[in-house]
Amino acid sequence: MTERLARVLLTGAGGFAGSHLARHLRDRGVEVDALAHAQGAGPRPPVPHHIYDGTLDSVRKAISNAQPQVVVHLASLFLSEHQPGHLDALVDANIRFGLHLLEAMGLEGVSRLVNAGTSWQHFGGAAYEPVNLYAATKQAFEDLVDHYVTARGLSAVTLKLFDTYGPEDRRGKIVPLLVQALRDGRCLELSPGEQCLELTHVDDVCAGFEMAALRLLEPRRSEHERFGLGSGHVVSLRELARLLEDLGGRTLDIRWGARPYRAREVMQPPEGLLPLPGWRARVPLRRGLEALL
Amino acid sequence: MTERLARVLLTGAGGFAGSHLARHLRDRGVEVDALAHAQGAGPRPPVPHHIYDGTLDSVRKAISNAQPQVVVHLASLFLSEHQPGHLDALVDANIRFGLHLLEAMGLEGVSRLVNAGTSWQHFGGAAYEPVNLYAATKQAFEDLVDHYVTARGLSAVTLKLFDTYGPEDRRGKIVPLLVQALRDGRCLELSPGEQCLELTHVDDVCAGFEMAALRLLEPRRSEHERFGLGSGHVVSLRELARLLEDLGGRTLDIRWGARPYRAREVMQPPEGLLPLPGWRARVPLRRGLEALL
Repeated sequence: MTERLARVLLTGAGGFAGSHLARHLRDRGVEVDALAHAQGAGPRPPVPHHIYDGTLDSVRKAISNAQPQVVVHLASLFLSEHQPGHLDALVDANIRFGLHLLEAMGLEGVSRLVNAGTSWQHFGGAAYEPVNLYAATKQAFEDLVDHYVTARGLSAVTLKLFDTYGPEDRRGKIVPLLVQALRDGRCLELSPGEQCLELTHVDDVCAGFEMAALRLLEPRRSEHERFGLGSGHVVSLRELARLLEDLGGRTLDIRWGARPYRAREVMQPPEGLLPLPGWRARVPLRRGLEALL
Repeated sequence: MTERLARVLLTGAGGFAGSHLARHLRDRGVEVDALAHAQGAGPRPPVPHHIYDGTLDSVRKAISNAQPQVVVHLASLFLSEHQPGHLDALVDANIRFGLHLLEAMGLEGVSRLVNAGTSWQHFGGAAYEPVNLYAATKQAFEDLVDHYVTARGLSAVTLKLFDTYGPEDRRGKIVPLLVQALRDGRCLELSPGEQCLELTHVDDVCAGFEMAALRLLEPRRSEHERFGLGSGHVVSLRELARLLEDLGGRTLDIRWGARPYRAREVMQPPEGLLPLPGWRARVPLRRGLEALL
């Protein structure tokens, strides 16, 4: 019989998906501890949290106190296009922090990790082609995970996130931007808008991370599995705007093409990522958007 | 017609392969500048050097001053088995430094990189399976290289080194250890000695790096090629000892099996790595070893 999921340590619990996941798991009776950066300017996690001060020791203490069955690593620094001044922060947030986590887990005898990757590691559906440096640091971290899997008995699942949306989204992403414009009638200057998004509702993302954690509780050999969390709801940015106009009963004031596409704009989300077994998106795009209005 | 190789910026020029390569290129009329760590405790490079003080700016200055056609990145922190206290140094030396190099190259308009990888990224001949965390950091850096190749027009060749040997080797590796024992008659306590090494002479390594740099001077599209620099001379540790005894006309005092194998001892060097086109090892093992005695 499989263990019950009772205790999780979560990084990135102050972020969009992380704060939803913390509440999602807590509502299912899971004891959730967060591990948060000392200098984190972001919102506080909605669960008790330990402090990561940039040292391995601080991670060991958090794990030793929380005694999690599974660590869920959602923390990352997202930058769609980096500037030279961002390099050190990218390395620290997306590689060093995770490496401290891996080592501390080994030292404290915790052997199950759910890790967050991005569909942007798979530009054009490639096994690996990064859209940007952010995606490359995600891939780099997966390589480090593989050491702990092959040499230290870690079991890991990396879930590749696509575009996510849902309530309480403060990331400045396109969905909340359109929803806000629908409310206040502001004019938006956007790219030509033919790029396609695979929008996945945050409730589905939470269900996926919970399933991955449960998957790791099954008796298994040490391995690193990778799955996509794409909803299959693919719409162009223009279609998304029309759908919101339809749901909101108002017209959006959008100047399409006022901005250029990004240098490596993803025009089509990658296909062919192995889906997480047993998971599928349950929130239809129309319903998920409606709930935001 | 292809450009002549005239100016190279070299990292790791104080190390074993690096110092040989610096002299090798200089002897062929190439102007070689080194980029060395400020706090480097190692030997000084045998060529003029710029200082890397841990910042991107210091790398930009070095590149701006040296105006290299090609950057050759040999610097790395090698640890066969890491300890928890080594994590930050591994990230800084094997990931952050190289990332600063990539970004600075882009900013200074230098678009050709020869990078040093290790056959230890390919345990059992896998496309990727790291022997240890050192090898995982090498793979992680390659993934960052890919961003600069796909998005910034970089052309890169990564050469995967096998076991290297040659004169002036201060790395505490098995070949100089055996040579020294042959001289002073000391007793060596070793593992059972059935692991196989693919020994490549440092002169052949230097020729390989020069060829890779020349390859990048040819008109080419931006890509990241990976090749092995394995000599094909595979011997077990016991056979290596017998060969040295034979060449030295003396018997080694070795207690085989006094130590265990390492946790992930590489018993066979990986096969199947694509060889660098046009390169083959020219120094026969017997002759290379003879020159050390």
